[in-house]
Amino acid sequence: MTFVAKTGGSDELKAIISAISTLVEEATFVANTEGITFRGMDPSHVALIDILWPNSAFERYECDSDIKFGVRVDEFSKLIKRASKKDSIEISISENNMLLVTIGKNKKYKMRLIESSVTDTPLPKITFDVKIGLTTGTFDKILGDVHVVSDYLTISTTESGAVFSGKGDAGEVTIGMSLGKEEDDADSIKSMDVKADGTGSYSLEYLNPIVKAVGSTAEIITCEYSESKPLRIEFMVANIGRIHFYLAPRVDN
Amino acid sequence: MTFVAKTGGSDELKAIISAISTLVEEATFVANTEGITFRGMDPSHVALIDILWPNSAFERYECDSDIKFGVRVDEFSKLIKRASKKDSIEISISENNMLLVTIGKNKKYKMRLIESSVTDTPLPKITFDVKIGLTTGTFDKILGDVHVVSDYLTISTTESGAVFSGKGDAGEVTIGMSLGKEEDDADSIKSMDVKADGTGSYSLEYLNPIVKAVGSTAEIITCEYSESKPLRIEFMVANIGRIHFYLAPRVDN
Amino acid sequence: MTFVAKTGGSDELKAIISAISTLVEEATFVANTEGITFRGMDPSHVALIDILWPNSAFERYECDSDIKFGVRVDEFSKLIKRASKKDSIEISISENNMLLVTIGKNKKYKMRLIESSVTDTPLPKITFDVKIGLTTGTFDKILGDVHVVSDYLTISTTESGAVFSGKGDAGEVTIGMSLGKEEDDADSIKSMDVKADGTGSYSLEYLNPIVKAVGSTAEIITCEYSESKPLRIEFMVANIGRIHFYLAPRVDN
Repeated sequence: MTFVAKTGGSDELKAIISAISTLVEEATFVANTEGITFRGMDPSHVALIDILWPNSAFERYECDSDIKFGVRVDEFSKLIKRASKKDSIEISISENNMLLVTIGKNKKYKMRLIESSVTDTPLPKITFDVKIGLTTGTFDKILGDVHVVSDYLTISTTESGAVFSGKGDAGEVTIGMSLGKEEDDADSIKSMDVKADGTGSYSLEYLNPIVKAVGSTAEIITCEYSESKPLRIEFMVANIGRIHFYLAPRVDN
Repeated sequence: MTFVAKTGGSDELKAIISAISTLVEEATFVANTEGITFRGMDPSHVALIDILWPNSAFERYECDSDIKFGVRVDEFSKLIKRASKKDSIEISISENNMLLVTIGKNKKYKMRLIESSVTDTPLPKITFDVKIGLTTGTFDKILGDVHVVSDYLTISTTESGAVFSGKGDAGEVTIGMSLGKEEDDADSIKSMDVKADGTGSYSLEYLNPIVKAVGSTAEIITCEYSESKPLRIEFMVANIGRIHFYLAPRVDN
Repeated sequence: MTFVAKTGGSDELKAIISAISTLVEEATFVANTEGITFRGMDPSHVALIDILWPNSAFERYECDSDIKFGVRVDEFSKLIKRASKKDSIEISISENNMLLVTIGKNKKYKMRLIESSVTDTPLPKITFDVKIGLTTGTFDKILGDVHVVSDYLTISTTESGAVFSGKGDAGEVTIGMSLGKEEDDADSIKSMDVKADGTGSYSLEYLNPIVKAVGSTAEIITCEYSESKPLRIEFMVANIGRIHFYLAPRVDN
């Protein structure tokens, strides 16, 4: 078995581990000739993360068979955070089943792997009626604006634009946005594709951490949803790897 | 009833709400044709804030009758903090008695108003023998210098200058200051007017939060007091609105 | 009795007090004609700090006899922190046994002295086989790198270089370093002197705080140790005063 994956910098891997850490404590990665993938749900099965990290995203990638390896996310995260922005990170697996993590030139970690537990997590089968592209910064601000009055973000989209809103005990908020006409219109939607009008409500308890976790590593995100159906957010990381984040809609009581 | 008040930026309103939040949890504002006012005391009646926000301080101001509106200060504060420095903030009252707060171009909040409870709070009637002007930065440093050994600030002023001091279990401190001769003499008094020498002691528990709250929004403050009488601090905010902060003197045991 | 010591700035004194605060709550300083010294151990007698602050390190120094004075470290530290970087700090002792601390031009503190309790603390008598010089920044990073997997830093040195390592439940790390060939090789050893190969393990619980405390005030540090013997770190502060930090080796169970 050969398995070596080496990144050019550390930001992307930090973002991926950080994203995973918002959902699970233990993560099993699957590596094959094409790259590394991860799929997992949070314990209450409200959110799902699906990551594809193709071999082309690495400075060096060698894998000649299908392998799985499980890690404690917080332990792995602590190691990765010791890398500075420009440090390469090389991971491989030793004969005695340890994860070898080399950061930069001279920092060599060995980390215990844990029993990998890949259960077959199917992706939700949805056709998305609405597709909105906006910057992570704009989306993060919207989440913050809504969070001061509500625990849920409601998105209502028609062909003329999107309205982000929230309502709680203290009050309510609406933030209207249309397609930005100019490149530098920071607080606007970058792209829109509306097959049918739709409204969906999603928990900020899940949205806030994932958006903070991936942060500026993915400049643009794509939100897709349909009326009362799950939301899918695509984070394109370094224009190569991608994180799909699925979130079940709010169930009205 | 017409009531609309719109600011040009957000710093001043943030400072006012922040100042009020150091004393009370619920605040009732009074608006009339001339502007908006607030007056309130802390629960133990040691400190009083008296705010005058004239119509000229607003980019747009319309009010054709006397109205009162009550807010929960922390809820209102959270909304206001969502404004960036340059965002305008427009407040008005809806027909169903909600406070409408529009931040920037597209952020619209509705907030529940609470029962307004304006009790007639008379201002202390004092003639002030001492008047000292200094920068908020200098005053904030003095408070910090004294706080490391004492819970009270004592000010003693004569024609030759002021001495700020404090004394506690661990030790004592004195900070002497005279009238600065040069414009750029940062750590000095900017102006002085002494009708009679006077010494007063005031609780840092109240002084520290209000000075931090208004902070750099008011560059210069004016402290006025008389021997063993309340202290009044005037914060001029954006050279238009003003906050008067009254603080009872320390009662010696 | 005459005793006056005045510094040119505040960074060095802050670093010294901060270093002492990592070990003890009460400190007794000894001043004589040659300067000020401090020596003390932590309550469990694992670490020892030995400070020499020669009269030449002060802008003004007068002391005509041997005096001892004891302070509560946290109280003294709070006062000293009120000094800005460029503020001079003058200390002297009043007739009624108070410590007088004048910061800058006009800030005068008086602090209660405590009963001084100098017990004769002998220095460990060791000949050090290994001597390594490196920047405080590099050493601080090494401590952080090791701390994510271990509570102990192990140093193994041979003529060809040093290996810093650690091992814990979650995994292990090794960081190899050789003598830097170029001036600007940040992550390398600056100087080495190896009389005999040696390995020693030392608790990060003590190393981390002292390195953070002295921080950038001492740019270069010198680590000396012998196989299974105490470690001594020399911090040269402002190229004049010095802090010696002794740490007992880890006792294997």
